[in-house]
Amino acid sequence: MYGRYTQELGVYAKEEAARLRESGQRRSVSERSRTLDLLEYNKGRCAKCRICTVRCQKFLISRVGEDWIFLILLGLFMALVSWVVDFCIAICLQAQKWMYGGLDSNVFLQYLAWVTYPVVLITFSAGFTQILAPQAVGSGIPEMKTILRGVVLKEYLTFKTFVAKVIGLTCALGSGMPLGKEGPFVHIASLCAALLSKFMSLFGGIYENESRNIEMLAAACAVGVGCCFAAPIGGVLFSIEVTSTFFAVRNYWRGFFAATFSAFIFRVLAVWNRDEETITALFKTRFRLDFPFDLQELPAFAVIGIASGFGGALFVYLNRLIVQFIRKQKAINRFLMKKRLLYPALVTLLVSTLTFPPGFGQFMAGKLTQKESLVTLLDNRTWAKQGIAEEFDYIGHSQAWKHPQVNVFVTLVLFIVMKFWMSALATTIPVPCGAFMPVFVIGAAFGRLVGESMAAWFPDGINTDGTIYPIVPGGYAVVGAAALSGAVTHTVSTAVIVFELTGQISHILPVMIAVILANAVAQSLQPSLYDSIIRIKKLPYLPELGWGHHEYYNIRVEDIMIRDVRYITLNCCYRDLHNVLLTGHLKTLALVESAESMILLGSIERAQLQALLSLQLGRHRRLEYIRERAVEEKKRLSVISNPCSEEESQRASQEVRFQVGIIISLNIAYTCAHFSNVGDKEIGLKLFFNAAKALIFCPLLFFFWQIFSDVRLIAHPMFLCVFQITEWEEKQLDEQVNFNNCKIDPAPFQLVERTSLHKTHTIFSLLGLDHAYVTSIGRLIGVVSLKELRKAIEGSVTVKGVKVRPPLASFRDSGTSSSENEATELHKLWDRHKSMSLPRVNTPSESDEKSQ
Amino acid sequence: MYGRYTQELGVYAKEEAARLRESGQRRSVSERSRTLDLLEYNKGRCAKCRICTVRCQKFLISRVGEDWIFLILLGLFMALVSWVVDFCIAICLQAQKWMYGGLDSNVFLQYLAWVTYPVVLITFSAGFTQILAPQAVGSGIPEMKTILRGVVLKEYLTFKTFVAKVIGLTCALGSGMPLGKEGPFVHIASLCAALLSKFMSLFGGIYENESRNIEMLAAACAVGVGCCFAAPIGGVLFSIEVTSTFFAVRNYWRGFFAATFSAFIFRVLAVWNRDEETITALFKTRFRLDFPFDLQELPAFAVIGIASGFGGALFVYLNRLIVQFIRKQKAINRFLMKKRLLYPALVTLLVSTLTFPPGFGQFMAGKLTQKESLVTLLDNRTWAKQGIAEEFDYIGHSQAWKHPQVNVFVTLVLFIVMKFWMSALATTIPVPCGAFMPVFVIGAAFGRLVGESMAAWFPDGINTDGTIYPIVPGGYAVVGAAALSGAVTHTVSTAVIVFELTGQISHILPVMIAVILANAVAQSLQPSLYDSIIRIKKLPYLPELGWGHHEYYNIRVEDIMIRDVRYITLNCCYRDLHNVLLTGHLKTLALVESAESMILLGSIERAQLQALLSLQLGRHRRLEYIRERAVEEKKRLSVISNPCSEEESQRASQEVRFQVGIIISLNIAYTCAHFSNVGDKEIGLKLFFNAAKALIFCPLLFFFWQIFSDVRLIAHPMFLCVFQITEWEEKQLDEQVNFNNCKIDPAPFQLVERTSLHKTHTIFSLLGLDHAYVTSIGRLIGVVSLKELRKAIEGSVTVKGVKVRPPLASFRDSGTSSSENEATELHKLWDRHKSMSLPRVNTPSESDEKSQ
Repeated sequence: MYGRYTQELGVYAKEEAARLRESGQRRSVSERSRTLDLLEYNKGRCAKCRICTVRCQKFLISRVGEDWIFLILLGLFMALVSWVVDFCIAICLQAQKWMYGGLDSNVFLQYLAWVTYPVVLITFSAGFTQILAPQAVGSGIPEMKTILRGVVLKEYLTFKTFVAKVIGLTCALGSGMPLGKEGPFVHIASLCAALLSKFMSLFGGIYENESRNIEMLAAACAVGVGCCFAAPIGGVLFSIEVTSTFFAVRNYWRGFFAATFSAFIFRVLAVWNRDEETITALFKTRFRLDFPFDLQELPAFAVIGIASGFGGALFVYLNRLIVQFIRKQKAINRFLMKKRLLYPALVTLLVSTLTFPPGFGQFMAGKLTQKESLVTLLDNRTWAKQGIAEEFDYIGHSQAWKHPQVNVFVTLVLFIVMKFWMSALATTIPVPCGAFMPVFVIGAAFGRLVGESMAAWFPDGINTDGTIYPIVPGGYAVVGAAALSGAVTHTVSTAVIVFELTGQISHILPVMIAVILANAVAQSLQPSLYDSIIRIKKLPYLPELGWGHHEYYNIRVEDIMIRDVRYITLNCCYRDLHNVLLTGHLKTLALVESAESMILLGSIERAQLQALLSLQLGRHRRLEYIRERAVEEKKRLSVISNPCSEEESQRASQEVRFQVGIIISLNIAYTCAHFSNVGDKEIGLKLFFNAAKALIFCPLLFFFWQIFSDVRLIAHPMFLCVFQITEWEEKQLDEQVNFNNCKIDPAPFQLVERTSLHKTHTIFSLLGLDHAYVTSIGRLIGVVSLKELRKAIEGSVTVKGVKVRPPLASFRDSGTSSSENEATELHKLWDRHKSMSLPRVNTPSESDEKSQ
Repeated sequence: MYGRYTQELGVYAKEEAARLRESGQRRSVSERSRTLDLLEYNKGRCAKCRICTVRCQKFLISRVGEDWIFLILLGLFMALVSWVVDFCIAICLQAQKWMYGGLDSNVFLQYLAWVTYPVVLITFSAGFTQILAPQAVGSGIPEMKTILRGVVLKEYLTFKTFVAKVIGLTCALGSGMPLGKEGPFVHIASLCAALLSKFMSLFGGIYENESRNIEMLAAACAVGVGCCFAAPIGGVLFSIEVTSTFFAVRNYWRGFFAATFSAFIFRVLAVWNRDEETITALFKTRFRLDFPFDLQELPAFAVIGIASGFGGALFVYLNRLIVQFIRKQKAINRFLMKKRLLYPALVTLLVSTLTFPPGFGQFMAGKLTQKESLVTLLDNRTWAKQGIAEEFDYIGHSQAWKHPQVNVFVTLVLFIVMKFWMSALATTIPVPCGAFMPVFVIGAAFGRLVGESMAAWFPDGINTDGTIYPIVPGGYAVVGAAALSGAVTHTVSTAVIVFELTGQISHILPVMIAVILANAVAQSLQPSLYDSIIRIKKLPYLPELGWGHHEYYNIRVEDIMIRDVRYITLNCCYRDLHNVLLTGHLKTLALVESAESMILLGSIERAQLQALLSLQLGRHRRLEYIRERAVEEKKRLSVISNPCSEEESQRASQEVRFQVGIIISLNIAYTCAHFSNVGDKEIGLKLFFNAAKALIFCPLLFFFWQIFSDVRLIAHPMFLCVFQITEWEEKQLDEQVNFNNCKIDPAPFQLVERTSLHKTHTIFSLLGLDHAYVTSIGRLIGVVSLKELRKAIEGSVTVKGVKVRPPLASFRDSGTSSSENEATELHKLWDRHKSMSLPRVNTPSESDEKSQ
């Protein structure tokens, strides 16, 4: 019956819709023709051109909504930014070299120039970022990960942050410190996308859609990596691995499209600037193609992978240790908090002193910039033959690795060790900076070290068929770079980035093996660098489930949920609302049918409830009430005093208005007190100050008014008023809440008691949930939020390997088969359900039957 | 209060848990020591060894559960399979060449050999697959896509299918037809994973987890592609793009690990077999590294991309057209159905006749196998210089492209055109085969054609700075191959596969640009080949949302949902259950609180309900009832006839037993009739036949019994029985259903009326849902299943470009802002909710307050 009725409704609706659509079309057509007519009428001759332009304009605007235009603009812009930043960094570094080179007569002056320059730049960068937008500090990937997870961190995507990040990054990298560009570029690209999105929303409506914006942010991350390394594929993969938990394959093309376009423009700019002849890789290598490596070299590559895994974990640990040490040492902390720029300056001073080329820097190729050292490390030639460094003709930058007294191996080891702690330290400076590139260089140096050792060990290569294929240490450097950066970031796609950076893919198998081994080792020891920063910064993020921990299938939601849920009932009064708002600090509250049935109806945001409450007790309603009271009072007065001329009545109304004025200000003060109780302290305070101003001004005004218009002061109703308001308020609070104008989410996400932790984690990370209610046949019995989930996961897999289980989890270990279990559980559930006697419309016949 | 009680419970539970755990540990320790003691006692001397082995065994078994062991085994096994298949294919092809070469004296005999060989192989392959496992036909990627989507297609993952697929594929590819290996290998790898999983579940429990199995299947798909092309990265990406909708990044490493290992072993086997000197790419190219292409060549690459996009769409369309043509032509269809092997034989005959080298084949390099043509197409040298093919020294296989009378360009064009329709036709043959490789070769040929034209047009290359860099047509072939295969499969990762196949990444930007353009064109014209097959086969799959269709945000669930939901109520009787089961064919049914309130409590599977019903009316209960009746009857009889000796009573009991026997058979017949009503016709029929047998045998038995034991025939209760049973059944049907032993899903997925189509699609594909209920504040108002969703998506974006909108969607076009809309809608919702008077425990004070 109901179904049929609905169907009829459906048919009616369809007809109605068709009618509406037709009339709509007709209207739009007629409107358009009217505008065109108007144009023709107005302009006469060049009307056709005009019409054409208008049409083109409309077409363009409609097209602007397309994704690909957005992506092209994003790619173009980011390529330009990347290129300009690179250009500025190159100039900065050149300037330092020029200064250092010009002062070669005096070592002290040289040292001063070498040290002062980076200290000034870093200090400026830190200060600038601190003043303009402190959010721009650091790499930004942890924040992007959190944002893509669905958490809103609005201040991270503003124009101020963009400016601070770009300028801060340029200065920081221009100083020559071991800092990277790729993390900040992910953030910059996301900033670009957010700002572009805002700008484009002037044209069309689709830019306001939130889920679309998140898709675009994901593409932007890919663009960031892509235009930084000119590595479109690696960029997309790296950004996916680093920022996403679940990736929608339908968004794949966006990333590829934008990143390719961006990388293309980035490289084309280099060609136009005559830096390059044509588009090639950023760090082109020229390893031989026919026999890239021997099968028997693979163990060496595996060793690089495993060692890089340990190294990566150590790097993450060291980085965290430094941050925590500085935070914990209260004396240091207090001192540094006072002089915020001292810490960056000190660190820079230390690092640049140690790399001073005539000083200790001569033993670790301190002269070279990051880019130069990477180019030399990936070099095709072998540096050390038979352990002696004589035969090697050091040309160009490779000169820096040669030292008259010291072996190349010592130089490499020193370089690795020094750069390792320097990078870990430098990335803690509060400037926009990443850690990828420094780690990449260290990895390359480590790979080179192993490669040179191998070359020294087997001078004629590892023989296979009599043909001599000497070992290529550059290939080892490539493998080491991919492995170490993969271990630090916990990604596999560094392999792809390496191929795109070097323009050669011949070492694919060694690289893949090393990266996978490095990942396996690093992931079992430490979280990734970005997860580590997330933990340090305490961002609201859900940790990953580790590899192969199967206890997640045994932990249930009921073990971790909070049973004492804050809720409001459908027929509660405003007083309950007030109390609930006072006691809890949850963002959303559950709406249940009644406290007895506990049937979940939906969830309401805290702000909505506050709005409801302030609507009920707010200014407008209070004013209305007071106006009413005042009018009544006036009437009473006018009945007491004789009704006289119009003038008199006008004055009376003015009096009323004035009374109202004062009472308003009193009310405002009262409201503020209220608000500050409820929680919104800032709004409360602001309102309070306004009210105070009004209270000061009103008497003055009132005074003047008295002088000029000679009115009787009717103190009586005004003072009465305050008491009356309290009384009125109490009455208002006892009224039942009217949810009519309140936004309710009618389907908050629900879980069942027996949902496993594994599934819960999947659902939370898939849908980007913040909390979920636990229900049992429609009844609210608990709530799980991100916090509980995080606790459960981190509690169950702590880093130190001690496994703590949630309180109730061990009950189920004496395992009966799950299906049987489920049936009995449901059985219990059902009995409870019955014993709780779900309220039901009592159909007499049914209940009779039941009682039989 | 409740909360506190729960907390106390929690504390108690914790203590209890700790106690249990301790005792458990103690027990296990004591048990273990006991077994060890036993061992020591039994064996005396070599006990230590024994203990050691036992411990090792235990350790190994516990370790076998680890993912990485599974993945290594999978990789190893698949590499072996791939290598063996390749080896067999090579032998088959060599055999054909040898036969063809040996008969060069007589053209007719040569033709016969050339044609018969593939016909026999293909016919054998088709017949073998048809007999052993028809599921092995085709590429298998569409099925894997469906399985990974969460749909269970069990018969696709059996051992029979594995055997049929491997042998069928080897024969099909050995015939030299334009068929591919990569699709079947995805399927074979998944088969391997499923079988391995089953095998490994003998060792540990985790292999039984379903979500884990799906994760492993995803990894297996990557292995399939990886070990087919020796392309680990491309394999992972391609398998993700082709099979997944949402990809869990935490599964990334599984794919990379297994695919790398597999590709490594695959290539190592080649080295061990002395085919290669060391591990290199499968189709190694040697393009120059320093100047791979000029910036001004990019437009040509873009042209290749766009043309490939059209070509790819045409290929998919052609393939579908052929299938549909054969299906529609009833005469052909009927004929082909009778002679199943005729179609493959005919197609093979046609294709191999056309490629016969002395015949038409000489104009299209018919002599070359797929692999050989690919190698020649990717060749480093230019074939045509200045339009004349003289300077080109054709060596090795490249000879085949040269024809004394015909230009190289004509050969290439003929090759492309002929291979195009041949491949589209050949992939419709019912043998295990893929389309990737043929398409790849055609793309390479097209790229080569463009490249040769460019080389002829600019013989000295496109000059930049005076240096002459001649154009490399091989690079164009690489680009074309990636673009066309990308267009057909709608993937971007073919770019990566190309790099890994050729071992060079220098053309990364042209390849990426061409692939993206090809994808953009192809995706706007046709579905991917795999989606097309899914549609043809009508697999239960959810189509993708197209690029940039923004109307999905405007269509709501309420527009597409079915309002006439089948449901059962909590207090329904068995008769209702019976009726519901008779009328609908849904897999799951909604359980609501009552027909008035319609509050959704959960969902029950159809099988569960059938079990409930058969339990109530089933054999056991009926037998019990009859036994009771019979005992009663016996009592009655024994009261009538005098109670006599024990012998007598024994005989009476035998009578009873016999009656029961007959009645049972009658009952069975009755039950069958019932079952066949309810829906399970097959089971019903089977039971019916059994019953019929019983009915025939029983009288016989009865007859013999009568002769031997001379019993009185008590016809009376037996015949009465049938009527009594009907009566009893009616009574049983009127009882209220007892859901106690029934598995109920207490949280079926729920949506709200206003959920957009976009979000619904996301949720369905994320969680792999089959259906979802639409509720409004806990009330069931509709249901959306995969079918409706598919209809809505395909209806709203048909391939021909005509957009049909769901009936109610146009109401919302006269757009007010969404937030306002929402508020008013909720308002309405609320009012309806109130007017429907949600049943509530009537607390008098509250209801009084409300009525005031």
